[in-house]
Amino acid sequence: MTYNVYLSGEIHTSWREEIIQGCQDLNLQIEFSSAVTNHEKSDAAGDGLKIQDDNFNRDHQSAKVNALRTKTLINNAHIVIVRFGNKYKQWNAAYDAGYCAAVNKPYITLHDEDIIHALKEVDAGAQAWATTPQQVVDLLNYTLSK
Amino acid sequence: MTYNVYLSGEIHTSWREEIIQGCQDLNLQIEFSSAVTNHEKSDAAGDGLKIQDDNFNRDHQSAKVNALRTKTLINNAHIVIVRFGNKYKQWNAAYDAGYCAAVNKPYITLHDEDIIHALKEVDAGAQAWATTPQQVVDLLNYTLSK
Amino acid sequence: MTYNVYLSGEIHTSWREEIIQGCQDLNLQIEFSSAVTNHEKSDAAGDGLKIQDDNFNRDHQSAKVNALRTKTLINNAHIVIVRFGNKYKQWNAAYDAGYCAAVNKPYITLHDEDIIHALKEVDAGAQAWATTPQQVVDLLNYTLSK
Amino acid sequence: MTYNVYLSGEIHTSWREEIIQGCQDLNLQIEFSSAVTNHEKSDAAGDGLKIQDDNFNRDHQSAKVNALRTKTLINNAHIVIVRFGNKYKQWNAAYDAGYCAAVNKPYITLHDEDIIHALKEVDAGAQAWATTPQQVVDLLNYTLSK
Amino acid sequence: MTYNVYLSGEIHTSWREEIIQGCQDLNLQIEFSSAVTNHEKSDAAGDGLKIQDDNFNRDHQSAKVNALRTKTLINNAHIVIVRFGNKYKQWNAAYDAGYCAAVNKPYITLHDEDIIHALKEVDAGAQAWATTPQQVVDLLNYTLSK
Amino acid sequence: MTYNVYLSGEIHTSWREEIIQGCQDLNLQIEFSSAVTNHEKSDAAGDGLKIQDDNFNRDHQSAKVNALRTKTLINNAHIVIVRFGNKYKQWNAAYDAGYCAAVNKPYITLHDEDIIHALKEVDAGAQAWATTPQQVVDLLNYTLSK
Amino acid sequence: MTYNVYLSGEIHTSWREEIIQGCQDLNLQIEFSSAVTNHEKSDAAGDGLKIQDDNFNRDHQSAKVNALRTKTLINNAHIVIVRFGNKYKQWNAAYDAGYCAAVNKPYITLHDEDIIHALKEVDAGAQAWATTPQQVVDLLNYTLSK
Amino acid sequence: MTYNVYLSGEIHTSWREEIIQGCQDLNLQIEFSSAVTNHEKSDAAGDGLKIQDDNFNRDHQSAKVNALRTKTLINNAHIVIVRFGNKYKQWNAAYDAGYCAAVNKPYITLHDEDIIHALKEVDAGAQAWATTPQQVVDLLNYTLSK
Repeated sequence: MTYNVYLSGEIHTSWREEIIQGCQDLNLQIEFSSAVTNHEKSDAAGDGLKIQDDNFNRDHQSAKVNALRTKTLINNAHIVIVRFGNKYKQWNAAYDAGYCAAVNKPYITLHDEDIIHALKEVDAGAQAWATTPQQVVDLLNYTLSK
Repeated sequence: MTYNVYLSGEIHTSWREEIIQGCQDLNLQIEFSSAVTNHEKSDAAGDGLKIQDDNFNRDHQSAKVNALRTKTLINNAHIVIVRFGNKYKQWNAAYDAGYCAAVNKPYITLHDEDIIHALKEVDAGAQAWATTPQQVVDLLNYTLSK
Repeated sequence: MTYNVYLSGEIHTSWREEIIQGCQDLNLQIEFSSAVTNHEKSDAAGDGLKIQDDNFNRDHQSAKVNALRTKTLINNAHIVIVRFGNKYKQWNAAYDAGYCAAVNKPYITLHDEDIIHALKEVDAGAQAWATTPQQVVDLLNYTLSK
Repeated sequence: MTYNVYLSGEIHTSWREEIIQGCQDLNLQIEFSSAVTNHEKSDAAGDGLKIQDDNFNRDHQSAKVNALRTKTLINNAHIVIVRFGNKYKQWNAAYDAGYCAAVNKPYITLHDEDIIHALKEVDAGAQAWATTPQQVVDLLNYTLSK
Repeated sequence: MTYNVYLSGEIHTSWREEIIQGCQDLNLQIEFSSAVTNHEKSDAAGDGLKIQDDNFNRDHQSAKVNALRTKTLINNAHIVIVRFGNKYKQWNAAYDAGYCAAVNKPYITLHDEDIIHALKEVDAGAQAWATTPQQVVDLLNYTLSK
Repeated sequence: MTYNVYLSGEIHTSWREEIIQGCQDLNLQIEFSSAVTNHEKSDAAGDGLKIQDDNFNRDHQSAKVNALRTKTLINNAHIVIVRFGNKYKQWNAAYDAGYCAAVNKPYITLHDEDIIHALKEVDAGAQAWATTPQQVVDLLNYTLSK
Repeated sequence: MTYNVYLSGEIHTSWREEIIQGCQDLNLQIEFSSAVTNHEKSDAAGDGLKIQDDNFNRDHQSAKVNALRTKTLINNAHIVIVRFGNKYKQWNAAYDAGYCAAVNKPYITLHDEDIIHALKEVDAGAQAWATTPQQVVDLLNYTLSK
Repeated sequence: MTYNVYLSGEIHTSWREEIIQGCQDLNLQIEFSSAVTNHEKSDAAGDGLKIQDDNFNRDHQSAKVNALRTKTLINNAHIVIVRFGNKYKQWNAAYDAGYCAAVNKPYITLHDEDIIHALKEVDAGAQAWATTPQQVVDLLNYTLSK
């Protein structure tokens, strides 16, 4: 079987590419997916619909359009990787983790050690906490091993 | 019927008390619940079990114990209020919101305007965004009106 | 056991009162509920939140607030009555019927004969089609009989 | 992955063809489906079964036969487009939207601005409101982008 | 806790009364429920609605009205007793058993030994097969014992 | 998409073959499945396991083995056809229909007119009642039409 | 709210009584439940039904009767305590834990340190691992604290 | 269709290979899967993550990593085989059986006769009890027969 792995969270570093590359190097049979990770495009996802002059309304419209994609892909995933950077709030990543917990879908968190206290509830629902993309690759390699 | 309302998130201001007081003043038939909001007690929730010298393991053990309470209460709630302060990360609040979204349980967010962009995915899944506890009281009053 | 019966749809005639009165006359053990049926109040349900100058945004905000109430009450109901008048579109009533069908919750439709063709899909998912409030009372009386 | 998109609602204009054509022009990997959109055929869907002289009974029989198809296709879809024209009541479209809301399946509404008030509950549960088929194409293109 | 026990099936002998009496004699905290067991009333359940001259249509209308009651009561039950007599077909009892199996609700069958072969699939999904009402009383007594 | 259609019930006439042949003649994209329809083989399904001298225990063991197959295939089906003959009791067919009703899976009944009264609850939950295999073929052809 | 707590597993020591007494001393609002813990009575649970001369068949019949009780009580519980002694295999306790994990119901394990390796999968799905009944009392006290 | 069969439990004998070989000899269309059955690798599954000096914490971390794999594969399986040896406790096998029972997924147990009493609850939820791998092959052959 092909595993579907959804990559949720932080968009400012190359963690997605590193995981995908690492898995390709191992020839793992994985189909990766993500939200649209281009920040401007994502913020403008709903701009083709009703013109919204107000920040909240524009964000609201775009966030709901983005969910068309993310909801479908998360529902379709076997495993979700949830990445938290140190600088940004990434509430959407925690939101995705809660969604996974509710539907019994296994997820792995990926974040540095200095934010473990703030993330303890999110980590408590996870199957694993990794600190590097390579660890995630290793976990996926183990999960898909014969 | 009595409504069960769960109050999730930030523990540094008096928003819980204000909502509860406001609803009591209106004689609304609501049973409120929360996580344990005493920070030290919450962090020590698992300390009576295995002695954990390491920060991650201690947090992990306590977070899972806290979930005994929060999972039960959220599952039992009709409506969840999710509060985000400006200073703290409150990933657990976003996590609760994602959980609610997945099980189709309606929730209201409560936060200031300056964090609407970071919270756009969480707000997109909410039934309402409030900025003051009084607005939440008004929403509950409306929801429970004859 | 007490039955919870939710009354969905048209707000311009006295069908709700007739059903409730008819059941009270028979001492049926039923707790009735509804959306807020005061049109102005319902349209203004979200007005205490963000000020929305635009019609769509105002309606959107109020509709989501109203769903706080209706979602909870429909989920809590054992039986739903869905009323369609001839003049108005009542798409929300059809929406409620579709919701009930998906979660296997039994519902009764209440409407005149001249709109049976337009309502054939909604009626196909219903347990009964009534044309008068008295018929609904009779159905509930039968359903609750010893 | 191939997306399954179900097109629900109004059958008197070419909106289905426009969306399908628009997506084909972009080579989007989408399998579209619909109810039988030939009005006479749809009304006669059950006529090969029991002979029904009465309008209600004939409609009832055909509507249930049509649901064999629509229920299967909606359950199988990742995204549903729900179209409302101005002239007809399309209660079945609202019914499909309610069904989607209940099972957490994302849907997009497609309708003109002059019926936003009547459709506010249906729009409140949607991920997006579009006014033209081209906007729907753009949303699908965004949703399926790499 | 009070147990809700639903009694499904054959209506020509006194098995319901015997079980209820037996449990009352033991002061078991059980609330029993059933379909309407008066045959004429049950067949006429939908007669107050549309006049149906045809046998199938009349039966169809009444059966759907009866389901208003039975669906609610079965969903509400903790345990279901499914009774098959030797003379009648009681397909509705087997239908109820299949419904219970699908939603993981435990049920007990009650029937004579000479129909075990025809009932083997229904018995395979049951928690117990009893041949007398007294055995059912004993099972309930055991189930509710301190 | 390929439809999976499960054929449940009576095994003494050629209705299965007629439906399958009829659909093949129309080149319908359907994968059919069934319980094992060889009566002796089906009764002996569990005989390779524990030796059971007693009729009930042998039937019980075989029925549970058969359910390995039928449960999987019904869960996998989009549409189920439930066939009742006049001579036999086919409680297992009614059981399958109840299972389908509970999980919202559409099914068609296939039986003669003289047993409509006894089957009224089963028919009430069905999408269609057919009296000939050809009618079922026609319904499937309609359901799969472009 | 009153919590329902189900006590699963080992029946040879007084752990149940200690937990119940400890919670009563604290006036915790908990309703406790269990399988029938009298070994002989439990083994004989089905003996009033068909006479089964064979060990497997007798056990099978009794185990299914016991499940009438345990399934209902576990489904009704908010929290489950799963106790493993060192001497016995208590596969039924592990079975209950797996059931809880699948339906997202929180459970606490109670066992000595020398069997942690054999129980690692069961502990991995638990919210907490306790080694003494007093620790369980403390966890429940915390969970129910105001 | 291809069946997915998950092989759970004991890792010290060749039962997995015997079942797989037996099914290959019959050309059955089955995709088999398992947990990682190399004991050392399985125990070390989480060792690449946080260094855990304590036995419980190390086991906990590895068990959760293993669940990434097993949860996905069990959810994906149509049928689960649960094997208990006589020497080891295999609580994880019983845990998997309970999981299957809760989600209505059919499973077969495979164990010797001398442990039937201790396994009676696990066997009660199973579709079949086999004592040899060959019996399992025969059951699968029957299940997949045309």
